[in-house]
Amino acid sequence: MSSIKFTSRQKEIIKIVEKNQPVTGEEIAQILKMNKSTLRLDFSVLTKFNILIAKPKIGYSLAGSHFHYFSKEEIKEQDISEVMEVPTLINHDTNIKDAIINLFMYNTDILYAVDNNSLVGVVTKKDLLKISINGKDLEKIPVSLVMTRMPNIIYLYSKSSIYDGIQKLNYHQIDNIPIVKSMEENGKNILKVIGQFSKTTACNLFFELLDK
Amino acid sequence: MSSIKFTSRQKEIIKIVEKNQPVTGEEIAQILKMNKSTLRLDFSVLTKFNILIAKPKIGYSLAGSHFHYFSKEEIKEQDISEVMEVPTLINHDTNIKDAIINLFMYNTDILYAVDNNSLVGVVTKKDLLKISINGKDLEKIPVSLVMTRMPNIIYLYSKSSIYDGIQKLNYHQIDNIPIVKSMEENGKNILKVIGQFSKTTACNLFFELLDK
Repeated sequence: MSSIKFTSRQKEIIKIVEKNQPVTGEEIAQILKMNKSTLRLDFSVLTKFNILIAKPKIGYSLAGSHFHYFSKEEIKEQDISEVMEVPTLINHDTNIKDAIINLFMYNTDILYAVDNNSLVGVVTKKDLLKISINGKDLEKIPVSLVMTRMPNIIYLYSKSSIYDGIQKLNYHQIDNIPIVKSMEENGKNILKVIGQFSKTTACNLFFELLDK
Repeated sequence: MSSIKFTSRQKEIIKIVEKNQPVTGEEIAQILKMNKSTLRLDFSVLTKFNILIAKPKIGYSLAGSHFHYFSKEEIKEQDISEVMEVPTLINHDTNIKDAIINLFMYNTDILYAVDNNSLVGVVTKKDLLKISINGKDLEKIPVSLVMTRMPNIIYLYSKSSIYDGIQKLNYHQIDNIPIVKSMEENGKNILKVIGQFSKTTACNLFFELLDK
Protein backbone atom coordinates (compact mmCIF):
# COMPACT_ATOMS: atom_id res chain seq x y z
CA MET A 1 0.00 0.00 0.00
CA SER A 2 2.96 2.23 -0.56
CA SER A 3 1.01 4.06 -3.25
CA ILE A 4 -1.24 5.91 -0.80
CA LYS A 5 -0.18 9.51 -0.20
CA PHE A 6 -1.10 10.86 3.20
CA THR A 7 -1.17 14.51 4.20
CA SER A 8 1.30 15.73 6.79
CA ARG A 9 -1.54 15.96 9.32
CA GLN A 10 -2.50 12.36 8.66
CA LYS A 11 1.12 11.30 9.12
CA GLU A 12 1.17 13.19 12.39
CA ILE A 13 -1.96 11.36 13.54
CA ILE A 14 -0.33 8.02 12.70
CA LYS A 15 2.68 8.97 14.82
CA ILE A 16 0.48 9.97 17.75
CA VAL A 17 -1.44 6.69 17.59
CA GLU A 18 1.79 4.71 17.33
CA LYS A 19 3.05 6.34 20.50
CA ASN A 20 -0.17 6.37 22.55
CA GLN A 21 -2.34 3.50 21.30
CA PRO A 22 -5.09 2.91 22.10
CA VAL A 23 -5.95 6.60 21.98
CA THR A 24 -9.30 8.31 21.48
CA GLY A 25 -10.13 10.91 18.83
CA GLU A 26 -10.52 13.50 21.58
CA GLU A 27 -7.04 12.80 22.92
CA ILE A 28 -5.53 13.05 19.46
CA ALA A 29 -7.34 16.35 18.90
CA GLN A 30 -5.98 17.64 22.22
CA ILE A 31 -2.41 16.68 21.34
CA LEU A 32 -2.76 18.39 17.95
CA LYS A 33 -4.52 21.35 19.60
CA MET A 34 -7.33 21.05 17.07
CA ASN A 35 -11.02 20.57 17.01
CA LYS A 36 -12.03 16.89 16.80
CA SER A 37 -14.52 17.63 14.02
CA THR A 38 -11.72 19.11 11.91
CA LEU A 39 -9.99 15.76 12.08
CA ARG A 40 -13.04 13.67 11.17
CA LEU A 41 -12.07 13.29 7.51
CA ASP A 42 -8.52 12.28 8.46
CA PHE A 43 -9.80 9.60 10.82
CA SER A 44 -12.15 8.31 8.19
CA VAL A 45 -9.40 8.16 5.54
CA LEU A 46 -6.98 6.42 7.89
CA THR A 47 -9.48 3.80 8.98
CA LYS A 48 -10.78 3.33 5.44
CA PHE A 49 -7.27 2.53 4.25
CA ASN A 50 -6.85 0.25 7.23
CA ILE A 51 -4.00 2.23 8.74
CA LEU A 52 -5.91 2.83 11.96
CA ILE A 53 -8.41 0.56 13.64
CA ALA A 54 -11.22 2.29 15.55
CA LYS A 55 -12.68 0.41 18.49
CA PRO A 56 -15.71 2.01 20.17
CA LYS A 57 -15.07 3.01 23.78
CA ILE A 58 -11.38 2.12 23.35
CA GLY A 59 -10.01 4.40 20.66
CA TYR A 60 -7.68 4.17 17.71
CA SER A 61 -4.79 1.81 17.33
CA LEU A 62 -2.43 1.08 14.48
CA ALA A 63 -3.81 -1.67 12.24
CA GLY A 64 -0.45 -2.69 10.93
CA SER A 65 1.57 -2.12 14.08
CA HIS A 66 2.56 -5.77 14.29
CA PHE A 67 3.04 -6.29 10.57
CA HIS A 68 6.69 -5.39 10.38
CA TYR A 69 6.98 -8.19 7.88
CA PHE A 70 7.42 -11.79 8.79
CA SER A 71 9.60 -14.06 6.72
CA LYS A 72 8.44 -17.59 5.89
CA GLU A 73 10.60 -18.90 8.72
CA GLU A 74 9.25 -16.38 11.22
CA ILE A 75 5.68 -17.29 10.33
CA LYS A 76 6.50 -20.88 11.24
CA GLU A 77 8.13 -19.91 14.53
CA GLN A 78 6.62 -16.67 15.82
CA ASP A 79 3.95 -16.80 18.50
CA ILE A 80 0.49 -16.13 17.17
CA SER A 81 0.07 -13.58 19.96
CA GLU A 82 2.37 -11.32 17.88
CA VAL A 83 -0.33 -10.86 15.26
CA MET A 84 -3.57 -11.52 17.11
CA GLU A 85 -6.45 -9.03 17.01
CA VAL A 86 -8.67 -7.70 19.78
CA PRO A 87 -11.60 -10.13 20.26
CA THR A 88 -15.18 -9.05 20.87
CA LEU A 89 -16.68 -10.77 23.90
CA ILE A 90 -20.33 -10.98 24.87
CA ASN A 91 -22.08 -12.62 27.76
CA HIS A 92 -23.53 -16.03 26.94
CA ASP A 93 -27.02 -14.84 27.86
CA THR A 94 -26.92 -11.86 25.47
CA ASN A 95 -29.95 -11.94 23.19
CA ILE A 96 -29.68 -12.40 19.42
CA LYS A 97 -30.63 -8.81 18.63
CA ASP A 98 -27.99 -7.37 20.96
CA ALA A 99 -25.44 -9.81 19.57
CA ILE A 100 -26.12 -8.55 16.04
CA ILE A 101 -25.84 -4.96 17.26
CA ASN A 102 -22.49 -5.84 18.84
CA LEU A 103 -21.23 -7.24 15.53
CA PHE A 104 -21.91 -3.92 13.86
CA MET A 105 -20.84 -1.72 16.75
CA TYR A 106 -17.44 -3.38 17.00
CA ASN A 107 -17.20 -4.00 13.27
CA THR A 108 -16.30 -7.62 13.78
CA ASP A 109 -17.17 -10.91 12.13
CA ILE A 110 -17.28 -13.07 15.20
CA LEU A 111 -18.38 -12.89 18.81
CA TYR A 112 -17.02 -14.97 21.65
CA ALA A 113 -19.57 -15.86 24.32
CA VAL A 114 -18.22 -15.97 27.83
CA ASP A 115 -19.60 -17.12 31.15
CA ASN A 116 -17.66 -15.62 34.07
CA ASN A 117 -14.64 -14.84 31.85
CA SER A 118 -14.56 -18.37 30.49
CA LEU A 119 -15.02 -19.08 26.78
CA VAL A 120 -18.24 -21.07 26.33
CA GLY A 121 -19.29 -20.32 22.75
CA VAL A 122 -18.52 -18.93 19.34
CA VAL A 123 -21.16 -16.95 17.48
CA THR A 124 -20.82 -16.36 13.74
CA LYS A 125 -22.83 -14.24 11.32
CA LYS A 126 -24.24 -17.45 9.88
CA ASP A 127 -25.51 -18.56 13.30
CA LEU A 128 -27.25 -15.22 13.70
CA LEU A 129 -28.68 -15.23 10.18
CA LYS A 130 -30.10 -18.71 10.57
CA ILE A 131 -32.11 -17.72 13.62
CA SER A 132 -33.09 -14.33 12.17
CA ILE A 133 -35.17 -15.73 9.33
CA ASN A 134 -37.45 -17.56 11.73
CA GLY A 135 -39.34 -14.34 12.34
CA LYS A 136 -39.20 -14.91 16.08
CA ASP A 137 -38.64 -12.25 18.68
CA LEU A 138 -34.86 -11.93 18.54
CA GLU A 139 -34.75 -10.08 21.84
CA LYS A 140 -36.07 -13.11 23.67
CA ILE A 141 -33.57 -15.69 22.36
CA PRO A 142 -30.12 -15.95 23.97
CA VAL A 143 -27.07 -16.52 21.76
CA SER A 144 -26.39 -19.68 23.75
CA LEU A 145 -29.15 -21.26 21.64
CA VAL A 146 -27.27 -20.81 18.36
CA MET A 147 -23.60 -20.70 19.29
CA THR A 148 -20.99 -23.40 18.79
CA ARG A 149 -20.02 -24.87 22.15
CA MET A 150 -17.19 -26.84 23.66
CA PRO A 151 -15.88 -29.34 22.69
CA ASN A 152 -16.56 -28.11 19.14
CA ILE A 153 -14.71 -24.81 19.49
CA ILE A 154 -11.38 -24.68 17.69
CA TYR A 155 -8.92 -22.55 19.66
CA LEU A 156 -5.21 -21.93 20.01
CA TYR A 157 -2.93 -20.95 22.86
CA SER A 158 -0.85 -17.79 22.53
CA LYS A 159 2.36 -19.79 22.25
CA SER A 160 1.18 -21.51 19.07
CA SER A 161 2.92 -20.32 15.93
CA ILE A 162 1.37 -18.11 13.26
CA TYR A 163 1.73 -21.15 10.99
CA ASP A 164 -0.42 -23.21 13.37
CA GLY A 165 -3.09 -20.56 13.08
CA ILE A 166 -3.09 -20.61 9.28
CA GLN A 167 -3.16 -24.40 9.29
CA LYS A 168 -6.13 -24.49 11.65
CA LEU A 169 -8.06 -21.90 9.61
CA ASN A 170 -7.59 -24.05 6.52
CA TYR A 171 -8.08 -27.42 8.03
CA HIS A 172 -11.30 -26.57 9.82
CA GLN A 173 -12.54 -24.18 7.15
CA ILE A 174 -13.24 -21.41 9.63
CA ASP A 175 -12.72 -17.65 9.42
CA ASN A 176 -11.54 -16.93 12.96
CA ILE A 177 -9.81 -18.70 15.82
CA PRO A 178 -9.89 -17.51 19.41
CA ILE A 179 -6.52 -17.34 21.17
CA VAL A 180 -6.96 -18.46 24.75
CA LYS A 181 -5.10 -18.58 28.02
CA SER A 182 -5.73 -21.41 30.41
CA MET A 183 -6.08 -20.09 33.95
CA GLU A 184 -7.62 -20.78 37.32
CA GLU A 185 -10.40 -18.57 38.57
CA ASN A 186 -12.34 -19.23 41.76
CA GLY A 187 -10.83 -22.71 41.91
CA LYS A 188 -12.01 -23.56 38.40
CA ASN A 189 -10.00 -24.03 35.25
CA ILE A 190 -11.17 -21.59 32.60
CA LEU A 191 -10.14 -20.65 29.06
CA LYS A 192 -9.89 -16.88 28.83
CA VAL A 193 -10.04 -15.37 25.33
CA ILE A 194 -7.12 -12.97 24.94
CA GLY A 195 -7.21 -12.48 21.18
CA GLN A 196 -8.29 -13.79 17.82
CA PHE A 197 -6.62 -14.77 14.58
CA SER A 198 -8.58 -14.33 11.37
CA LYS A 199 -8.33 -15.03 7.67
CA THR A 200 -8.07 -11.27 7.24
CA THR A 201 -4.86 -11.21 9.29
CA ALA A 202 -3.60 -14.29 7.45
CA CYS A 203 -4.23 -12.56 4.11
CA ASN A 204 -2.42 -9.44 5.30
CA LEU A 205 0.60 -11.57 6.23
CA PHE A 206 0.41 -13.37 2.90
CA PHE A 207 0.36 -10.11 1.00
CA GLU A 208 3.32 -8.78 2.97
CA LEU A 209 5.24 -11.96 2.28
CA LEU A 210 4.52 -11.79 -1.44
CA ASP A 211 5.38 -8.13 -1.60
CA LYS A 212 8.90 -8.35 -0.22
CA MET B 1 -2.95 -31.98 4.76
CA SER B 2 -0.73 -34.84 3.79
CA SER B 3 -1.30 -36.36 7.21
CA ILE B 4 -4.84 -37.50 6.43
CA LYS B 5 -5.10 -41.17 5.60
CA PHE B 6 -7.94 -42.04 3.24
CA THR B 7 -9.35 -45.49 2.66
CA SER B 8 -8.93 -47.06 -0.76
CA ARG B 9 -12.61 -46.46 -1.46
CA GLN B 10 -12.24 -42.79 -0.61
CA LYS B 11 -9.24 -42.58 -2.92
CA GLU B 12 -11.31 -44.19 -5.65
CA ILE B 13 -14.06 -41.61 -5.14
CA ILE B 14 -11.51 -38.79 -5.44
CA LYS B 15 -10.31 -40.28 -8.74
CA ILE B 16 -13.87 -40.53 -10.07
CA VAL B 17 -14.61 -36.93 -9.14
CA GLU B 18 -11.35 -35.76 -10.69
CA LYS B 19 -12.31 -37.39 -13.96
CA ASN B 20 -16.03 -36.56 -14.07
CA GLN B 21 -16.51 -33.38 -12.05
CA PRO B 22 -19.06 -32.11 -11.37
CA VAL B 23 -20.57 -35.49 -10.60
CA THR B 24 -23.49 -36.41 -8.34
CA GLY B 25 -23.42 -38.92 -5.52
CA GLU B 26 -25.75 -41.16 -7.52
CA GLU B 27 -23.39 -41.18 -10.48
CA ILE B 28 -20.42 -42.01 -8.27
CA ALA B 29 -22.40 -44.84 -6.68
CA GLN B 30 -23.27 -46.18 -10.14
CA ILE B 31 -19.65 -46.13 -11.26
CA LEU B 32 -18.61 -47.95 -8.08
CA LYS B 33 -21.60 -50.31 -8.41
CA MET B 34 -22.54 -49.53 -4.83
CA ASN B 35 -25.47 -48.20 -2.93
CA LYS B 36 -25.36 -44.42 -2.44
CA SER B 37 -26.16 -44.78 1.26
CA THR B 38 -23.10 -47.00 1.72
CA LEU B 39 -20.98 -44.11 0.50
CA ARG B 40 -22.56 -41.46 2.70
CA LEU B 41 -19.80 -41.55 5.32
CA ASP B 42 -17.11 -41.33 2.63
CA PHE B 43 -18.75 -38.27 1.10
CA SER B 44 -19.05 -36.67 4.49
CA VAL B 45 -15.39 -37.35 5.34
CA LEU B 46 -14.19 -36.05 1.98
CA THR B 47 -16.20 -32.85 2.16
CA LYS B 48 -15.36 -32.31 5.84
CA PHE B 49 -11.66 -32.46 5.01
CA ASN B 50 -12.29 -30.12 2.11
CA ILE B 51 -11.18 -32.61 -0.51
CA LEU B 52 -14.54 -32.52 -2.27
CA ILE B 53 -16.94 -29.64 -2.57
CA ALA B 54 -20.63 -30.50 -2.65
CA LYS B 55 -22.87 -28.13 -4.58
CA PRO B 56 -26.61 -28.80 -4.36
CA LYS B 57 -28.16 -29.69 -7.71
CA ILE B 58 -24.69 -29.78 -9.29
CA GLY B 59 -22.75 -32.50 -7.51
CA TYR B 60 -19.26 -33.02 -6.21
CA SER B 61 -16.11 -31.42 -7.50
CA LEU B 62 -12.54 -31.47 -6.30
CA ALA B 63 -11.91 -28.64 -3.84
CA GLY B 64 -8.21 -28.59 -4.36
CA SER B 65 -8.17 -29.46 -8.02
CA HIS B 66 -6.41 -26.23 -8.89
CA PHE B 67 -4.10 -26.18 -5.90
CA HIS B 68 -1.19 -28.02 -7.37
CA TYR B 69 1.01 -25.55 -5.54
CA PHE B 70 1.88 -22.14 -6.79
CA SER B 71 5.29 -20.65 -6.18
CA LYS B 72 5.63 -17.02 -5.13
CA GLU B 73 6.42 -16.12 -8.73
CA GLU B 74 3.46 -18.03 -10.10
CA ILE B 75 1.12 -16.28 -7.68
CA LYS B 76 2.30 -12.97 -9.10
CA GLU B 77 1.84 -14.09 -12.69
CA GLN B 78 -0.89 -16.73 -12.90
CA ASP B 79 -4.37 -15.73 -13.97
CA ILE B 80 -6.82 -15.58 -11.11
CA SER B 81 -9.16 -17.75 -13.17
CA GLU B 82 -6.81 -20.65 -12.30
CA VAL B 83 -7.95 -20.58 -8.69
CA MET B 84 -11.38 -18.98 -8.80
CA GLU B 85 -14.39 -20.65 -7.17
CA VAL B 86 -17.93 -21.17 -8.41
CA PRO B 87 -19.98 -18.04 -7.60
CA THR B 88 -23.55 -18.10 -6.33
CA LEU B 89 -25.81 -15.86 -8.39
CA ILE B 90 -29.28 -14.64 -7.50
CA ASN B 91 -31.70 -12.43 -9.30
CA HIS B 92 -31.62 -8.81 -8.11
CA ASP B 93 -35.31 -9.00 -7.16
CA THR B 94 -34.87 -12.06 -4.92
CA ASN B 95 -36.30 -11.35 -1.49
CA ILE B 96 -34.15 -11.23 1.65
CA LYS B 97 -35.48 -14.50 3.05
CA ASP B 98 -34.75 -16.42 -0.17
CA ALA B 99 -31.32 -14.82 -0.33
CA ILE B 100 -30.53 -16.09 3.17
CA ILE B 101 -31.80 -19.55 2.22
CA ASN B 102 -29.52 -19.47 -0.84
CA LEU B 103 -26.52 -18.67 1.35
CA PHE B 104 -27.14 -21.80 3.37
CA MET B 105 -28.20 -24.00 0.47
CA TYR B 106 -25.04 -23.27 -1.48
CA ASN B 107 -22.89 -22.99 1.63
CA THR B 108 -21.46 -19.69 0.49
CA ASP B 109 -20.54 -16.40 2.14
CA ILE B 110 -21.54 -14.09 -0.64
CA LEU B 111 -24.26 -13.72 -3.26
CA TYR B 112 -23.94 -11.87 -6.54
CA ALA B 113 -27.12 -10.19 -7.70
CA VAL B 114 -27.64 -10.19 -11.45
CA ASP B 115 -30.10 -8.51 -13.76
CA ASN B 116 -30.26 -10.26 -17.14
CA ASN B 117 -26.87 -11.93 -16.60
CA SER B 118 -25.24 -8.64 -15.68
CA LEU B 119 -23.66 -8.09 -12.26
CA VAL B 120 -25.62 -5.38 -10.45
CA GLY B 121 -24.99 -6.06 -6.78
CA VAL B 122 -23.05 -7.84 -4.05
CA VAL B 123 -24.90 -9.18 -1.02
CA THR B 124 -22.97 -10.09 2.13
CA LYS B 125 -24.05 -11.79 5.34
CA LYS B 126 -23.71 -8.42 7.06
CA ASP B 127 -26.13 -6.79 4.59
CA LEU B 128 -28.65 -9.53 5.30
CA LEU B 129 -28.16 -9.40 9.07
CA LYS B 130 -28.64 -5.65 9.17
CA ILE B 131 -32.03 -5.87 7.53
CA SER B 132 -33.04 -8.99 9.49
CA ILE B 133 -33.07 -7.31 12.89
CA ASN B 134 -35.66 -4.79 11.77
CA GLY B 135 -38.35 -7.37 12.33
CA LYS B 136 -39.88 -6.59 8.97
CA ASP B 137 -41.34 -9.12 6.61
CA LEU B 138 -38.19 -10.41 4.93
CA GLU B 139 -40.15 -12.01 2.12
CA LYS B 140 -41.34 -8.62 0.94
CA ILE B 141 -37.97 -6.88 0.73
CA PRO B 142 -35.77 -7.41 -2.34
CA VAL B 143 -32.01 -7.78 -1.92
CA SER B 144 -31.58 -4.78 -4.19
CA LEU B 145 -32.47 -2.69 -1.14
CA VAL B 146 -29.44 -3.83 0.86
CA MET B 147 -26.83 -4.83 -1.70
CA THR B 148 -23.71 -2.91 -2.69
CA ARG B 149 -24.12 -1.54 -6.21
CA MET B 150 -21.97 -0.27 -8.98
CA PRO B 151 -19.76 1.74 -8.94
CA ASN B 152 -18.95 0.48 -5.44
CA ILE B 153 -18.43 -3.14 -6.41
CA ILE B 154 -14.80 -4.25 -6.42
CA TYR B 155 -14.21 -6.79 -9.19
CA LEU B 156 -11.44 -8.35 -11.23
CA TYR B 157 -11.17 -9.69 -14.76
CA SER B 158 -10.08 -13.28 -15.25
CA LYS B 159 -6.73 -12.20 -16.68
CA SER B 160 -5.75 -10.46 -13.44
CA SER B 161 -3.09 -12.25 -11.45
CA ILE B 162 -3.69 -14.16 -8.23
CA TYR B 163 -1.52 -11.50 -6.62
CA ASP B 164 -3.92 -8.78 -7.80
CA GLY B 165 -6.71 -10.68 -6.08
CA ILE B 166 -4.87 -10.88 -2.77
CA GLN B 167 -3.95 -7.21 -2.99
CA LYS B 168 -7.55 -6.19 -3.63
CA LEU B 169 -8.88 -8.34 -0.76
CA ASN B 170 -6.45 -6.60 1.58
CA TYR B 171 -6.70 -3.11 0.26
CA HIS B 172 -10.49 -2.99 0.29
CA GLN B 173 -10.87 -5.15 3.39
CA ILE B 174 -13.36 -7.47 1.74
CA ASP B 175 -13.76 -11.24 1.91
CA ASN B 176 -14.67 -12.02 -1.69
CA ILE B 177 -14.14 -10.55 -5.14
CA PRO B 178 -16.23 -11.42 -8.18
CA ILE B 179 -14.29 -12.35 -11.31
CA VAL B 180 -16.09 -10.91 -14.31
CA LYS B 181 -16.04 -11.05 -18.06
CA SER B 182 -17.01 -8.00 -20.04
CA MET B 183 -19.33 -8.94 -22.91
CA GLU B 184 -22.06 -7.64 -25.13
CA GLU B 185 -25.56 -8.97 -24.75
CA ASN B 186 -28.55 -7.61 -26.67
CA GLY B 187 -26.47 -4.64 -27.72
CA LYS B 188 -25.56 -3.75 -24.14
CA ASN B 189 -22.22 -4.03 -22.38
CA ILE B 190 -22.55 -6.27 -19.36
CA LEU B 191 -20.26 -7.69 -16.69
CA LYS B 192 -20.91 -11.40 -16.36
CA VAL B 193 -19.75 -13.05 -13.13
CA ILE B 194 -17.73 -16.14 -14.03
CA GLY B 195 -16.12 -16.85 -10.67
CA GLN B 196 -15.10 -15.54 -7.30
CA PHE B 197 -11.88 -15.24 -5.35
CA SER B 198 -12.10 -15.38 -1.56
CA LYS B 199 -9.93 -15.02 1.53
CA THR B 200 -10.48 -18.75 2.02
CA THR B 201 -8.78 -19.49 -1.30
CA ALA B 202 -6.05 -16.98 -0.50
CA CYS B 203 -5.43 -18.70 2.84
CA ASN B 204 -5.27 -22.09 1.14
CA LEU B 205 -2.65 -20.76 -1.28
CA PHE B 206 -0.75 -19.19 1.62
CA PHE B 207 -0.71 -22.45 3.52
CA GLU B 208 0.48 -24.38 0.46
CA LEU B 209 3.25 -21.85 -0.08
CA LEU B 210 4.39 -22.08 3.53
CA ASP B 211 4.24 -25.83 3.52
CA LYS B 212 6.58 -26.48 0.61
